[in-house]
Amino acid sequence: MPELRKDPVIGRWVIIASERSKRPDDFVLQEEQAQKGALCPFCTGNEDKTPPEILAYREPGTLPDKPGWRLRVVSNKFPALRIEGQLNKRGEGMYDKMQGIGAHEVIIETPDHEKRLADLEQGQIEDILWAFRDRTLDLKKDPRFRYILIFKNQGRAAGASLSHSHSQLIATPIVPKRVMEELVGASEYYEYKERCVFCDMVYQELRDRVRVVGQNDDFVAIEPFASRFPFETWIIPKIHEAHFEEATKHEFSKLAALLKDTMGRLKSVLKVPPYNYIIHTAPYVEDYSREYHWHIEIMPKLTRVAGFEWGTGFYINPTPPEEAARYLRGDDPISTPKN
Amino acid sequence: MPELRKDPVIGRWVIIASERSKRPDDFVLQEEQAQKGALCPFCTGNEDKTPPEILAYREPGTLPDKPGWRLRVVSNKFPALRIEGQLNKRGEGMYDKMQGIGAHEVIIETPDHEKRLADLEQGQIEDILWAFRDRTLDLKKDPRFRYILIFKNQGRAAGASLSHSHSQLIATPIVPKRVMEELVGASEYYEYKERCVFCDMVYQELRDRVRVVGQNDDFVAIEPFASRFPFETWIIPKIHEAHFEEATKHEFSKLAALLKDTMGRLKSVLKVPPYNYIIHTAPYVEDYSREYHWHIEIMPKLTRVAGFEWGTGFYINPTPPEEAARYLRGDDPISTPKN
Repeated sequence: MPELRKDPVIGRWVIIASERSKRPDDFVLQEEQAQKGALCPFCTGNEDKTPPEILAYREPGTLPDKPGWRLRVVSNKFPALRIEGQLNKRGEGMYDKMQGIGAHEVIIETPDHEKRLADLEQGQIEDILWAFRDRTLDLKKDPRFRYILIFKNQGRAAGASLSHSHSQLIATPIVPKRVMEELVGASEYYEYKERCVFCDMVYQELRDRVRVVGQNDDFVAIEPFASRFPFETWIIPKIHEAHFEEATKHEFSKLAALLKDTMGRLKSVLKVPPYNYIIHTAPYVEDYSREYHWHIEIMPKLTRVAGFEWGTGFYINPTPPEEAARYLRGDDPISTPKN
Repeated sequence: MPELRKDPVIGRWVIIASERSKRPDDFVLQEEQAQKGALCPFCTGNEDKTPPEILAYREPGTLPDKPGWRLRVVSNKFPALRIEGQLNKRGEGMYDKMQGIGAHEVIIETPDHEKRLADLEQGQIEDILWAFRDRTLDLKKDPRFRYILIFKNQGRAAGASLSHSHSQLIATPIVPKRVMEELVGASEYYEYKERCVFCDMVYQELRDRVRVVGQNDDFVAIEPFASRFPFETWIIPKIHEAHFEEATKHEFSKLAALLKDTMGRLKSVLKVPPYNYIIHTAPYVEDYSREYHWHIEIMPKLTRVAGFEWGTGFYINPTPPEEAARYLRGDDPISTPKN
């Protein structure tokens, strides 16, 4: 059983995944295994290589855990958190820990091993968003969970162990520290201004247009003012809404369109960049509907986080977001003088 | 001039280093450049390849910026922050920014290109610690700075661009968010317990001994209870002291001995691991002498931080610290049953 442990100074939680336990030699091997052409468990025909499917969108008449699917959701075979059991919070002297309870699911986004998110049809991307929503609504019913995080790792530099396009969902028994920080920041802004900080951001970005990469009626893609990473891109709904899973059918369709457009732009400028994306959404237990505004943060992993970032929480970004936006829009940044 | 920008939600500062500006193609080249046998600017005889030395420990009779040194401190040729100018804090609509003022120095730890920290004599490691202290005392006099961070990146996976052993010092105009979080956590513990959280940690670790890797009269090396990374190791003074730079000559000598011992253990178990270390010390402007306790955090970079960690602030660590400690002590972990 994985164990959740809390740093007594900073309150940071760590999952000690003893079932994934690694000896020193395992780390040396890590890089090489990706090279081998191992049989991919996410390809059609290999459904028996994954745990049974929790959800699938499939052709009529096809059977669970058999071919005929467009999208499958399965439990992670090596889960960071385990679904069975109780939290069993307890101390160990001055330290705090609990059992590593949670859900850890994998959304297999396409049966096609070669296709990346940018290559999928808009309808397939809509399917992925619906799967995120369907699984969120189901897991919300479990009273042990306080937050559901949806994210994607693409490429080994971004932490993906399999190249076949997939995303992940983790339901956690506590609202994560990083999420709380954002809620606190958004709440403080709301208290001071009586406005949502993300709504203000959308308004200013649409007026200034220097960091806008793309938009449609419902969503805008920007390079944020304080981008941590080169080509960091956020997709934000133009209308205030705290919860991703409460988006309408129309909105999911528009989001899929802008996500495809944005991933295509990143691909054309950066070739096949490793990246993470994370859906930032409000917790569902408390009410943050006034001050929080869901959005997606896409972070290409082109630079390395080093001692300075670890020590300070500052980031060093060598590419100003205004310049990244010009590249992604297809303007000619070479003719524009650098400041 | 680099620009400091603040995320309006989370208060995270980012250095937009436009002088280091990178175009999309630059990121593709990044990996390959390390392969080439470029002339190392940190080797003896190449002193003219660096900015002039700020401090050096050298043989009597040798000249600045010429051979004959054991250790040199120079400005970073590509500084994240610039020493000249004023902060010039200002807004850009809803956003906050200031000029990227600060000091960014490089401590070249040895003239020998091949030697890593674990290979240096204890006396050389003492020199490094004295250089950290000397530079800190000097930079403290500059009223524009609020914090001085000392850290080391070793290996490309840990963000080092040069392999020649060196560490870095950055003086920042604000107390970094990550440092504030630790101060807040330590202060809350102190308010509640009227004891230092790090003193309690040292006491419990020395009593339990399961996570202790090494110790001497003045310092202890442990795998922390909530280790974020496999083989994460902290070196903590046994006696309460908030500021690294106030350690005594005797303490620097003992610290050098335990640092050499610890780096040697990490090297023998993990071969030549990429790692970061960071000196965690109290800011010098306000008084945190009761609640804070300086220490060094060494983080081998064997796993990758991915979407889940970015989204939650949780970490997933596949190697329990108790097991890592057994490896580093040289116990036989294979005969010990895994829990």
